[in-house]
Amino acid sequence: MAYITQDPTPGSAPVRIGLIGSGWMGAFHADSIARRVPGASLAAIADPNVESAQTLAGKLGAAKVTASAEDILADPDIDAVIIASPARFHASLIAQAAAAGKHVFCEKPAAQGLEELGAALTAVEQAGVHFQIGFNRRYAEDFQAAKRDLAAGVAGTPQLLRSLTRDPGTGSIPHAARVPAWTIFLETLIHDFDTLNWFNEGAEPVEVYAVADALVEPSLREQGFLDTAVVTIRYSNGAIAVAEANFSALYGYDVRGEVFGSKGMVQAGRSTETAARRYTAEGLAADTPRLNVELFSQAYTDELADFAAAVRAKRDGGLPPSSAFTLTPVGADARRALAMALACIESVKSGAPVAVTEKAGV
Amino acid sequence: MAYITQDPTPGSAPVRIGLIGSGWMGAFHADSIARRVPGASLAAIADPNVESAQTLAGKLGAAKVTASAEDILADPDIDAVIIASPARFHASLIAQAAAAGKHVFCEKPAAQGLEELGAALTAVEQAGVHFQIGFNRRYAEDFQAAKRDLAAGVAGTPQLLRSLTRDPGTGSIPHAARVPAWTIFLETLIHDFDTLNWFNEGAEPVEVYAVADALVEPSLREQGFLDTAVVTIRYSNGAIAVAEANFSALYGYDVRGEVFGSKGMVQAGRSTETAARRYTAEGLAADTPRLNVELFSQAYTDELADFAAAVRAKRDGGLPPSSAFTLTPVGADARRALAMALACIESVKSGAPVAVTEKAGV
Amino acid sequence: MAYITQDPTPGSAPVRIGLIGSGWMGAFHADSIARRVPGASLAAIADPNVESAQTLAGKLGAAKVTASAEDILADPDIDAVIIASPARFHASLIAQAAAAGKHVFCEKPAAQGLEELGAALTAVEQAGVHFQIGFNRRYAEDFQAAKRDLAAGVAGTPQLLRSLTRDPGTGSIPHAARVPAWTIFLETLIHDFDTLNWFNEGAEPVEVYAVADALVEPSLREQGFLDTAVVTIRYSNGAIAVAEANFSALYGYDVRGEVFGSKGMVQAGRSTETAARRYTAEGLAADTPRLNVELFSQAYTDELADFAAAVRAKRDGGLPPSSAFTLTPVGADARRALAMALACIESVKSGAPVAVTEKAGV
Amino acid sequence: MAYITQDPTPGSAPVRIGLIGSGWMGAFHADSIARRVPGASLAAIADPNVESAQTLAGKLGAAKVTASAEDILADPDIDAVIIASPARFHASLIAQAAAAGKHVFCEKPAAQGLEELGAALTAVEQAGVHFQIGFNRRYAEDFQAAKRDLAAGVAGTPQLLRSLTRDPGTGSIPHAARVPAWTIFLETLIHDFDTLNWFNEGAEPVEVYAVADALVEPSLREQGFLDTAVVTIRYSNGAIAVAEANFSALYGYDVRGEVFGSKGMVQAGRSTETAARRYTAEGLAADTPRLNVELFSQAYTDELADFAAAVRAKRDGGLPPSSAFTLTPVGADARRALAMALACIESVKSGAPVAVTEKAGV
Repeated sequence: MAYITQDPTPGSAPVRIGLIGSGWMGAFHADSIARRVPGASLAAIADPNVESAQTLAGKLGAAKVTASAEDILADPDIDAVIIASPARFHASLIAQAAAAGKHVFCEKPAAQGLEELGAALTAVEQAGVHFQIGFNRRYAEDFQAAKRDLAAGVAGTPQLLRSLTRDPGTGSIPHAARVPAWTIFLETLIHDFDTLNWFNEGAEPVEVYAVADALVEPSLREQGFLDTAVVTIRYSNGAIAVAEANFSALYGYDVRGEVFGSKGMVQAGRSTETAARRYTAEGLAADTPRLNVELFSQAYTDELADFAAAVRAKRDGGLPPSSAFTLTPVGADARRALAMALACIESVKSGAPVAVTEKAGV
Repeated sequence: MAYITQDPTPGSAPVRIGLIGSGWMGAFHADSIARRVPGASLAAIADPNVESAQTLAGKLGAAKVTASAEDILADPDIDAVIIASPARFHASLIAQAAAAGKHVFCEKPAAQGLEELGAALTAVEQAGVHFQIGFNRRYAEDFQAAKRDLAAGVAGTPQLLRSLTRDPGTGSIPHAARVPAWTIFLETLIHDFDTLNWFNEGAEPVEVYAVADALVEPSLREQGFLDTAVVTIRYSNGAIAVAEANFSALYGYDVRGEVFGSKGMVQAGRSTETAARRYTAEGLAADTPRLNVELFSQAYTDELADFAAAVRAKRDGGLPPSSAFTLTPVGADARRALAMALACIESVKSGAPVAVTEKAGV
Repeated sequence: MAYITQDPTPGSAPVRIGLIGSGWMGAFHADSIARRVPGASLAAIADPNVESAQTLAGKLGAAKVTASAEDILADPDIDAVIIASPARFHASLIAQAAAAGKHVFCEKPAAQGLEELGAALTAVEQAGVHFQIGFNRRYAEDFQAAKRDLAAGVAGTPQLLRSLTRDPGTGSIPHAARVPAWTIFLETLIHDFDTLNWFNEGAEPVEVYAVADALVEPSLREQGFLDTAVVTIRYSNGAIAVAEANFSALYGYDVRGEVFGSKGMVQAGRSTETAARRYTAEGLAADTPRLNVELFSQAYTDELADFAAAVRAKRDGGLPPSSAFTLTPVGADARRALAMALACIESVKSGAPVAVTEKAGV
Repeated sequence: MAYITQDPTPGSAPVRIGLIGSGWMGAFHADSIARRVPGASLAAIADPNVESAQTLAGKLGAAKVTASAEDILADPDIDAVIIASPARFHASLIAQAAAAGKHVFCEKPAAQGLEELGAALTAVEQAGVHFQIGFNRRYAEDFQAAKRDLAAGVAGTPQLLRSLTRDPGTGSIPHAARVPAWTIFLETLIHDFDTLNWFNEGAEPVEVYAVADALVEPSLREQGFLDTAVVTIRYSNGAIAVAEANFSALYGYDVRGEVFGSKGMVQAGRSTETAARRYTAEGLAADTPRLNVELFSQAYTDELADFAAAVRAKRDGGLPPSSAFTLTPVGADARRALAMALACIESVKSGAPVAVTEKAGV
């Protein structure tokens, strides 16, 4: 069921990838490239924290380690980069990488404002490189099955949509996570926005109304750190969507999607990681998933396999990977979701609905 | 699991009930009283359409039939009434019944405005009669199990809530249903509002933001008939809730509730009426429920059994029915849910969030 | 979805039913007749324990109470009897009731040997009365949905079948249940045999191989009280079935059926009584059903409603109740299942497979 | 949740593995070793069909290709072998490999008779090499979760067990699969036997009664090719188990396990590969899994990762992989399951129960 990239043509050189940013997510992507993605190799790692990059490179066998992304961008042997640095560097790194002729896979969000994103995507277009944004849910097998059904018209015209993200937690917000405000929109709900846009393909988000609060850790409300949010979205085809997020689900990682339309309903989102069930004097019990890299492990591999295949096709002149439905999230998807997140921030500030426009920055 | 009323004390006289309004819902309630509710009997039926009342009375063995509700209210042998007339008569009938010393079970909504509801509930209070509103979902066994768990603290403090109603349909709105506008809030979502209030007991709805449209039958938009709605509700304890409704689910009747809180999540809502499953070359298939009286048949009986038991206790001096958690929906519940529905109508008109106030009428 | 008997023709007299045996099951049936079955009335109760019968009659409003079944059989005002006495009296009571012109609903097993059953069914046939055996699972809505699907060919030709019964328990066998041996075959698995025969309609059980043991209460093994059994059945169409029973499931009442065939699989059997689910730090949890009268409450009512409708049709000359598939369990069904239970007892004794024959007694 | 081998110590040489037999299963294992198992490398492939081996080696980068297993066994650079040749060669290859000092992973069945298996396992013991049999279900995450729960006592003492395998099919048996008789016991149900033994750890299978037939393709009955079987197994602790297999499930691959005991029940077996669900006018629908390498892809990788880790520990002197419960299937497990399969063949021939003995061959 899951998306499986064709194996690379025997004899074709692997796609040589440089990683920019070896934090938690970057390290995970590096591991995928080195061990799980066919036809790709981890060629270099750049991180200001050279020691961390060195350790990772040693473990995974990457030949080159550097403190500076520029070293990677200047390396003619490198085909593509994975940008997993802090979000504030994303837009300028995209532009630089494109200018250096590197294909780009960038973690979300692609930028923090629409203006800088516009500049980055213009650079991508001018360079003619492949650009992909890390909306990994599109590669989860149940979300793909839902998308395939929607593309086949199973639900008819969408009328009501829902997407939610509840991160696993313990009932409080760890200190490391008490990062700059608006994370819930820019880093978390941006996934849900993309899912909704993808499920409601062909329609544009028109207006959002966002409510957000610090309910997990009320003491952080003053500092603007919001951990719970609900967003209502109106689309150009009339459909009404709800996106919802919370940073501390004690039962683990909960990601779901639902589309209700003129002909029926499609649902995605596994509520139990394992199908093993226990029946005792207390009733029925089952385990729930705990980590995103558990729940989405296949998706994280497949998004990079798709990326590697697309880069290989560009480099070697072959056919790009194909799918029965729109799959790869590209620049326009990054921009649409970012515009929604930014409009949500406005909505929380004003307490009123806000029009979604992809024109302006923050 | 389901709420089971104690059998009436042997020898105690049945609660004699008069039905006001013998339309579809009234006829169903009459059938429940006559055949499924212990310790109650159907004594009389009032309907301007006397013929319809006569037919029903013949089938169920009710002795008295009349065109006028007054005849029932004046009958000293009648303990209580079920009000199932059109909604515009509810408030005045409640007031009249209370003044006549009759206990009252009233279908939702209890009124069309807060002022007339206030008058009706004052009459109830002055007369000291029992009043119950027809929020039948409280009696569905899975909603009760969820409420029991919430009362036991399973989910902790509520942070995110959801309630939805999707009525079964065929993709268009039948002519008979093209009734006065705002039905979706006053007749349908009012159930969801009560479910959310009940699940989030102790908190008050503070503000609503409602979006509504005619997506099933766009041609009715001009006439103000809205078939799809999403409401965001903020509660006094910070919890954010979403209520959602649509008038035409091709797969049948879909009613669900979900509460996410500081300790976990509780879900109610059966998506399949029967547990029988088919596995064929096309995959897995199962039936879905089609009618509210199928899905909620036990709930419809149990709400009336609860009513009959409460009336009996008032009449005979015994103990009222008890439950491990708040169960019977009373006047304050009717008012709270109605205030939310009215605020939603304001919100749709203004396109902005609206404060919920139980003070004023429309 | 569930089988719903047509309401009796208005004006037709209710079917007057006499109950023989007011023990636990008899009392439950009496309650169904008195309160839940349309067009039937509880006219009399016979039980050697007159006091118990009196109490029940008082509660349910039955006019006549007697110590002797003969009084009921001699009463010309009684249309039909429900036989719920101990199993050793079933066959002779069936024969007597038929001879007295009463229609008969008999709890399982219809007899303890094939010879006495043969005599009883001959009496039924000669009297031309309606006979129904209490295989209530046929009336459970999920088993009916499975049967409907099988009748429609969804699973193709059956190849593998499974039916199981696990009674709720606490890990030991209550003293009251330490009844004569072979209960597990004659009283419990006889339900599963009927389910398998009904699902595999058109084929005959040819051979059984039974294994049984006292695993819940090993101390009872010496006295021949077996609490766990597995039976393999070969059918004339080649299908292989497994029936399984245990007397002490700590998680409650577990009844399931499965048919795998040339085109697919059909499953029945609800594993959770309520669809309400809890998600906490411990994972997912849900309640499980505890009592047969909870799990099968609708089925118990519907089998009697079917019986009452069939009796009414015989008495008043109308059409018998109809269904899209074979539904009412009759004499041949009682005999087929009993023959299997008896063959199982032989198999346990001999440790070898035993042919199923409906010719001989025990 | 799933079993995850610790990454090999940085700097430790990968375990060099030689594949014997490059058919469908061998090729899949080679792919796992080359691409998905940490700390292992595919060093050589032996297959009489050298061309097939060559193609596979080219694709996966194995340096050595040979027609003869002896070449691999003689290579001092090779640590271990995967035996995936036809089953009739398994036992002698195990013995030869052990004699050559190679660690052995062997596909099931480990032999075709108990005598030759005894000789092979003696060779393994004398050489002190690690031996593992390909009972991959032990590595499926839901079967592991069930085993973990059983080890924790969740179900108490097992009383009833069930394991089933239904291979995906189209309603007929492909020509390529019309292989020598008894496949259903020696190649398919042997998995179920191991699952039951593992779930009922500590007890020994005592007696089997097997029924088998050609129901999918009755025309093959004469040639002894049986496609449907049900086996009853009695264990030394009294538990009764049922194993069931069929070669043509139109709805896909269906593998399940269930243990019922004195304290509860544990179930494993995913009935749907994806959690995506469709609700339409026809009801609920979902996809079902189709291929074993889809359903068990993680399990196939993990069994080899466990093997590689055990070999590495033996070779380098470290600690073997550990688990909270018995995991790795070894020689005694291979023998126990084979003895059951052989007893089943006897049972089908004789039509009677047969004692399980691990002493004799066929």
